[in-house]
Amino acid sequence: MKNTFGNQIALTIFGESHGTGIGVVLDGLAPGIPVDEGFIRSQLQKRRPAGKISTARREADEYVIESGVFNGHTTGTPVCIVIPNTAQRSGDYAATRSKARPGHADYTAYCKYHGFEDYRGGGHFSGRITAGLVAAGGILIPALAAKGIGIATHISRCAGIDDRAFEDPAADTVALNQADFPVLSPEAAQKMQEAIELAAQEGDSVGGILETLITGLPAGLGEPWFDTVEGMLAHALFSIPAVKGVSFGDGFELADQRGSAANDPFRRENGRIITTKNSNGGINGGITNGMPLLIRCAVKPTPSIYREQQTVDFMTGENTVLQIKGRHDPCIVHRARIVADSICALVIADLLAGRFGTDYLGGEE
Amino acid sequence: MKNTFGNQIALTIFGESHGTGIGVVLDGLAPGIPVDEGFIRSQLQKRRPAGKISTARREADEYVIESGVFNGHTTGTPVCIVIPNTAQRSGDYAATRSKARPGHADYTAYCKYHGFEDYRGGGHFSGRITAGLVAAGGILIPALAAKGIGIATHISRCAGIDDRAFEDPAADTVALNQADFPVLSPEAAQKMQEAIELAAQEGDSVGGILETLITGLPAGLGEPWFDTVEGMLAHALFSIPAVKGVSFGDGFELADQRGSAANDPFRRENGRIITTKNSNGGINGGITNGMPLLIRCAVKPTPSIYREQQTVDFMTGENTVLQIKGRHDPCIVHRARIVADSICALVIADLLAGRFGTDYLGGEE
Amino acid sequence: MKNTFGNQIALTIFGESHGTGIGVVLDGLAPGIPVDEGFIRSQLQKRRPAGKISTARREADEYVIESGVFNGHTTGTPVCIVIPNTAQRSGDYAATRSKARPGHADYTAYCKYHGFEDYRGGGHFSGRITAGLVAAGGILIPALAAKGIGIATHISRCAGIDDRAFEDPAADTVALNQADFPVLSPEAAQKMQEAIELAAQEGDSVGGILETLITGLPAGLGEPWFDTVEGMLAHALFSIPAVKGVSFGDGFELADQRGSAANDPFRRENGRIITTKNSNGGINGGITNGMPLLIRCAVKPTPSIYREQQTVDFMTGENTVLQIKGRHDPCIVHRARIVADSICALVIADLLAGRFGTDYLGGEE
Amino acid sequence: MKNTFGNQIALTIFGESHGTGIGVVLDGLAPGIPVDEGFIRSQLQKRRPAGKISTARREADEYVIESGVFNGHTTGTPVCIVIPNTAQRSGDYAATRSKARPGHADYTAYCKYHGFEDYRGGGHFSGRITAGLVAAGGILIPALAAKGIGIATHISRCAGIDDRAFEDPAADTVALNQADFPVLSPEAAQKMQEAIELAAQEGDSVGGILETLITGLPAGLGEPWFDTVEGMLAHALFSIPAVKGVSFGDGFELADQRGSAANDPFRRENGRIITTKNSNGGINGGITNGMPLLIRCAVKPTPSIYREQQTVDFMTGENTVLQIKGRHDPCIVHRARIVADSICALVIADLLAGRFGTDYLGGEE
Repeated sequence: MKNTFGNQIALTIFGESHGTGIGVVLDGLAPGIPVDEGFIRSQLQKRRPAGKISTARREADEYVIESGVFNGHTTGTPVCIVIPNTAQRSGDYAATRSKARPGHADYTAYCKYHGFEDYRGGGHFSGRITAGLVAAGGILIPALAAKGIGIATHISRCAGIDDRAFEDPAADTVALNQADFPVLSPEAAQKMQEAIELAAQEGDSVGGILETLITGLPAGLGEPWFDTVEGMLAHALFSIPAVKGVSFGDGFELADQRGSAANDPFRRENGRIITTKNSNGGINGGITNGMPLLIRCAVKPTPSIYREQQTVDFMTGENTVLQIKGRHDPCIVHRARIVADSICALVIADLLAGRFGTDYLGGEE
Repeated sequence: MKNTFGNQIALTIFGESHGTGIGVVLDGLAPGIPVDEGFIRSQLQKRRPAGKISTARREADEYVIESGVFNGHTTGTPVCIVIPNTAQRSGDYAATRSKARPGHADYTAYCKYHGFEDYRGGGHFSGRITAGLVAAGGILIPALAAKGIGIATHISRCAGIDDRAFEDPAADTVALNQADFPVLSPEAAQKMQEAIELAAQEGDSVGGILETLITGLPAGLGEPWFDTVEGMLAHALFSIPAVKGVSFGDGFELADQRGSAANDPFRRENGRIITTKNSNGGINGGITNGMPLLIRCAVKPTPSIYREQQTVDFMTGENTVLQIKGRHDPCIVHRARIVADSICALVIADLLAGRFGTDYLGGEE
Repeated sequence: MKNTFGNQIALTIFGESHGTGIGVVLDGLAPGIPVDEGFIRSQLQKRRPAGKISTARREADEYVIESGVFNGHTTGTPVCIVIPNTAQRSGDYAATRSKARPGHADYTAYCKYHGFEDYRGGGHFSGRITAGLVAAGGILIPALAAKGIGIATHISRCAGIDDRAFEDPAADTVALNQADFPVLSPEAAQKMQEAIELAAQEGDSVGGILETLITGLPAGLGEPWFDTVEGMLAHALFSIPAVKGVSFGDGFELADQRGSAANDPFRRENGRIITTKNSNGGINGGITNGMPLLIRCAVKPTPSIYREQQTVDFMTGENTVLQIKGRHDPCIVHRARIVADSICALVIADLLAGRFGTDYLGGEE
Repeated sequence: MKNTFGNQIALTIFGESHGTGIGVVLDGLAPGIPVDEGFIRSQLQKRRPAGKISTARREADEYVIESGVFNGHTTGTPVCIVIPNTAQRSGDYAATRSKARPGHADYTAYCKYHGFEDYRGGGHFSGRITAGLVAAGGILIPALAAKGIGIATHISRCAGIDDRAFEDPAADTVALNQADFPVLSPEAAQKMQEAIELAAQEGDSVGGILETLITGLPAGLGEPWFDTVEGMLAHALFSIPAVKGVSFGDGFELADQRGSAANDPFRRENGRIITTKNSNGGINGGITNGMPLLIRCAVKPTPSIYREQQTVDFMTGENTVLQIKGRHDPCIVHRARIVADSICALVIADLLAGRFGTDYLGGEE
């Protein structure tokens, strides 16, 4: 099931950057989940480019809910959301279509789709397609919040600059979900934005690390093999364009630790079983242990840069050079965070629905 | 589908550490794949513990092919392989069953299975269950090799000691697949083994990073969303017990690079389109570009250590201390590499069968 | 995956009768399949109500291809087709919403969706939703025809009147696919239409049997267990509203035969292995044998009738009577045939893509 | 997922008639379901051949539970059950391997598996493989019974002889589940057995219709599209070898009825909403309405007959004649009923687990 993810709650994604419209079908939702259209719009707004550190293409991102919502609530049948494309400028792309942009999918798309791919603006590979995921997240995130589950993502590192770690899960979650530039330390935020602008001025781009915290999960979600919480989340998170690594808890740092340091001791406090630290990121044996999930995604620098690059014309087979024009982002880390939140919401909602049944996130009339 | 992975070629895993038997069902194989029972045995041998750096439990790992193989070839119907358990000592576990071992799944299993779980020796969470994966890999890896696809994994880092990087893909692949301790630099291998022994003497354990190289893949495998090559591989690789991070190409290092450094320029050389370096690990936009796949798995230190640890008895709710006895490994990185190979083989075989049809890996009578 | 069907080629369906729009996402198509928009329109036309024997609701069925088609061909990425709803009259339904229409899904929808369902015009259960399936069939059917695979459905029985059996597969296929009322015998067609009109005059409805012939299939499609050709087709065909039985070959008549009569002898003729008759409907052991598939669907009479019926108000719990008003069909068998064709096309395309790979139905640029 | 069926509870089947062993993996079961090994054995006994009306091959059907059961209860992890083959006589088959037995899968297997198939005794297509399904049913059926859900199947018709219809669901269910020859009317049973013996004496075989009643289901199970209760059950039931038709309620008879006769009026009686008759077999719009499910399977006569039959040698391409020797059944309808029960139990358990969560059928320690 190529463009579909999830078991009990499943999302199907469609669309091309310069086609008629993009969107998603979100199936398996409980009936009776309130749908707040203003919130969906505000989520889409967080993904939209803005200011000097983003592409100049500005889509309205007006969305249409075709189905599955009635009287302000989910019906329990598939929710299809379409976001029309309106601001495409397809002329920018035709001339250079077969000059493979390094780091992009032009060449791999050609190998897979034999030239029938819609190559304009990245086609089905475009980061724009993530808008559908964000719209879906606009339904899922409040449904999880109603169950006490919070999701928040910050840029833990960008252009070599570190944000501070999560300290107060509840307060940090609120702060990040209100922020346009999701960084906990104002100083770090300032430095990161300067570094992004500098890269942009130099015709280059930067990457970073997104760190997501998920609080309020019950213990006992996930499976020991294959559908581990780590495996499910990673599977979906690698759909964020430019993500090249996913880790949990202390992630790659655990490789250098000893077991006596890496193990998280269990304790009972205030009648609840907790771990006294969280190097394992809330997951043991693929299953949630009730501690917050801590997830890191490594985001490579945007492959669209203005500098001249060596490449090949894959239709003529000639080596050549390429200078990308058009509108693009010097950094997508800050825009991707809301995509990470949305994908995490999808996976968590699916795990909960599998565990507790299809009505779990819904309401009673 | 909880304990099943794959679309066209799918593996279902079953078994508990101290139950009757463990194993797998491997379905969707092409008919006519030669099955070399000696090779399967040698693969299982690579996973078996040996020497001072492994657990003292020594299973014979005699396996039975129940179905799906006839006259030395796959029939195209499901291959069930059962590996009987013979060397279990269940008495070791009963007394401490509800003292949650930190870093282990005892507590999460209890939350999920409500006390019905087979707690002996880690039950269904035991690393022993990976023997079934390795047996399946014993069929898949030669089938891929017959198509020119090589898979090899080395310990790129262990206990803080780095192995050298891959240099000559073909030669390094051969060398690693013959090695008992899969490290390219003999000096690094020596130091790592010493570090593991030291940790063992100190009642502690170490982790590391596995790096897998997959060569000979055609361009055009994978999907842009969800079933990206990264997502599929990561999903499955997080089933290796103790893996807490998965990355591709330069992985988390890409987060600190600029686009001009991270992009891999395309070139045509000797009639083939290649990239002049491989920071993206052979994948662009979720799809193979014909360069070798480079995959890293962060393996945390074995959670079983002999030192006294703080924990909770999850049945009584009392805080307590735990000193693990029984037989266990001070490091599982070297044993896990053959599991990584086997899981990669499963995912790659599945991608190929999806792309080229169910007969792709098979033969004609 | 609730509203999704298929493995390699998968269709996701969405929409409510009186919502914003209905449609499908068709994923996994090969790149390069020609998309003939006129043909899609003509297929939708065959499903549209017409004349005295159909509902008075007349939707334009103008469709929008949101994605996955570029320069007149499939791109290989998901094709989303939306058909806006324009002719709904929602006022007809509110008053009687909780009086369960016998034979309809009002009560079961209430049990499943707890009152959040969009009850207007049957909501997500409406036969109107099949328009999306027909649009998808409008892409798939010509793609199969290009491979020599023909699909045609006739009303083999309606209101107790039998059509003649298939005689000349090629000629009958052509004739049926041009016919508005898909019956092979003109006399039978005349009598059936009279019987439908009579039932309509009497405020009642009739059912019938659809018989589908699929020619040109290779031998060797399908699986021995679960994903048998019969099982796959039946699974999907039961989505046609009102279908209550599916059979293959001589179907239920086989129950009364002896083996010596039911077995289809194999012969070699003109270099091809055939069976001399086709009681098994082209399938042995769940797998195609190269003979035409013969599939029958029992279609119950339309549950919407104008006569007064006994029922219960499921919100008040009171026994009551119901007289359905609004617009509906005295028979849906003739409209359902194009839905049967489309669903068969989906299942066959999926089986072929699984067997021969994702490019099988596509083209080369 | 070729040999796997189910979503939340999934069964994977493996084995060949003359291989080492056959069996199933049953995954997704709730933890804490009691496992009664005597009941499993008695279910297998009902499938085993006996007396003059069955094959002379008599397997012990001793089974081994490899995993997933601990202290007499399911653990929640995959249950693998292996049934070794012991009474095979493979010499019977080699000589005639490429003479396609009419009505059997020899030729289609050859087309699919290119000659690598295990052709002995029907290989993976053998009815013997259903023993694994029956063993799985031996766990599922009591788990459903504990929730008040009853399943029973009778031979409603065999060799042209009708059994009486279900009258008292509870009493009929008990009677059938104790009967060796599952027919409600003793006279009909007597006549059917005589007809089977007669056919056997004449070197021929007979078929029939199985009718299954499922009582005690909640309303609201199933989906409107694709995963309709009818579609799910039919998909799986077509895996019973020889089933060529599946219908619900009055099935094909509905095609001749008018809506006023086919609709089932709703009423409230004793505080429960029911229908006053059950022509729709307990399903409206693909979803259970709380009335008993009524399912019919058309079973063709056993294709193995002793009479000489025309066929082709598919390896040489020559037309030839075939006289089947070896051991086989003149009728499999009575043996198949327990397979039908088991498959229904699988589908119903899966629907319940999807709706109410993974713990639904389990217990609390």
